[in-house]
Amino acid sequence: MRPHTLGVIGLGAIGGSLALQAKRAGIATVLGWSPEPAERVAAVRQGAIDDAPPRAADVARAVELLVLAAPPAANLELLGSLKPHIGAGALVTDVGSVKRAIVARADGLGLGPRFAGGHPLAGTHAHGFAAARVDLFKGAVVYITATRDGDGAAREVAHFWESVLEAHAVLIDAAQHDHQLALTSHLPQAVASLLAHHLAHATPPGATFGPGARDATRLAASEPALWTEIFLMNRDELLPALRSLEEPLGELERALETGNAQAVTAWLSRAAQWRRQADA
Amino acid sequence: MRPHTLGVIGLGAIGGSLALQAKRAGIATVLGWSPEPAERVAAVRQGAIDDAPPRAADVARAVELLVLAAPPAANLELLGSLKPHIGAGALVTDVGSVKRAIVARADGLGLGPRFAGGHPLAGTHAHGFAAARVDLFKGAVVYITATRDGDGAAREVAHFWESVLEAHAVLIDAAQHDHQLALTSHLPQAVASLLAHHLAHATPPGATFGPGARDATRLAASEPALWTEIFLMNRDELLPALRSLEEPLGELERALETGNAQAVTAWLSRAAQWRRQADA
Repeated sequence: MRPHTLGVIGLGAIGGSLALQAKRAGIATVLGWSPEPAERVAAVRQGAIDDAPPRAADVARAVELLVLAAPPAANLELLGSLKPHIGAGALVTDVGSVKRAIVARADGLGLGPRFAGGHPLAGTHAHGFAAARVDLFKGAVVYITATRDGDGAAREVAHFWESVLEAHAVLIDAAQHDHQLALTSHLPQAVASLLAHHLAHATPPGATFGPGARDATRLAASEPALWTEIFLMNRDELLPALRSLEEPLGELERALETGNAQAVTAWLSRAAQWRRQADA
Repeated sequence: MRPHTLGVIGLGAIGGSLALQAKRAGIATVLGWSPEPAERVAAVRQGAIDDAPPRAADVARAVELLVLAAPPAANLELLGSLKPHIGAGALVTDVGSVKRAIVARADGLGLGPRFAGGHPLAGTHAHGFAAARVDLFKGAVVYITATRDGDGAAREVAHFWESVLEAHAVLIDAAQHDHQLALTSHLPQAVASLLAHHLAHATPPGATFGPGARDATRLAASEPALWTEIFLMNRDELLPALRSLEEPLGELERALETGNAQAVTAWLSRAAQWRRQADA
């Protein structure tokens, strides 16, 4: 679908970028809402939205496509509270990093045929409307997760991402999404934070970090409240992933303890080969 | 010192960049040597060095300052094998990531007054002369580690880095350097490789990685043979650093197991606060 009226609830880095890019792409009316009055004002001033009604329900009532771009737990609540206000024939989607919970909520609310989950792989460790960018989704992968009877809605939402936001939509089962993202996103976040957490108290004062350590810890600057929600919503997938780091960590420790250069090189090579392919 | 003749043994990303930048900075004669004939040819062709004599000893004999830019274990060997060829009054330094071993070797060889260790914080996960850059050291921190009776040599080598390569030289004790770098560089390398090592076999085929996961694993692409040497030379510092990750990892796992949102947020906030400061 290519809606004439688009609503965005939550005007942070993701919601703000989505509104900005949709407006630039020629969507006639983009309405936005944020609990932060300053974000609403900034989004109107920068031309990301045409108007910011005082209540989220006013946005829901007026649009053909409603995007929930609040943090994941808030999106779950919003789906229920906005349901009575969503126009007949309108579709709803979200942009959260965990998909089983919201897809199940949509099914439970009877919104299955009108909802599809969405998750653009275009995060940023910055947050707020100030971090919104007009090209954040261009060329990015966006996962679309259908409800039980929502294949039609999923196709429409996928088409919106492709035709309006120039993203590459990939349809995927919500459970498969959450398993995969535990590895490709939530585990990297946890590991970057683990490293930063340790360095925060162990590093001698005045020590300098090179570009490598900065890259390895960059994700640690991400918003703690947001990531707490993501980690807890996907903890049945994240916890086993965290625990399975113990085995390769133990392998490296034993190779170092015994001074086994061949084993250290083999261990590092497996990681290097994979990472070099990822850039190829 | 600002030498008229500079010798660089090893023409990879670090040695090649050093030669390139020194030549641009007006050092009259830069000689280079690499065990790889192709690297020697490339370095001459691109104007990084004036000549590439067939033997490393020919370089050592002809220069006022000799820089060992081979991998760390090779530098240890080169210090001994080149000692008889180093000109009277010439100084020697290196660019390796671990400093106790080479400083002790210089002391043991009686080269103390003529040697200072060096370590520029300007690594790259790319390698070989093709990765050399003319501005790699501009503004970078370079650690200078003195031998027992090498304060004068350390000052001269520091002055070389500052006046010729526009780096910011920091004098530091070799043991303190190795302790600090275990945390700021070797541990981030190990953690990035650990994450990549796990993802290499656990990730479903076709899964896409966002920019965050790419940053967090970027270091894993680094050269395994080089990092095996660094890890093993500094394993008495790296092993305790690796083991001390267990405590914060266990904290996160327990907070997730019990669904303790406050504890997860506090844990992530400690890491976020530190990482945000690092960019400030």
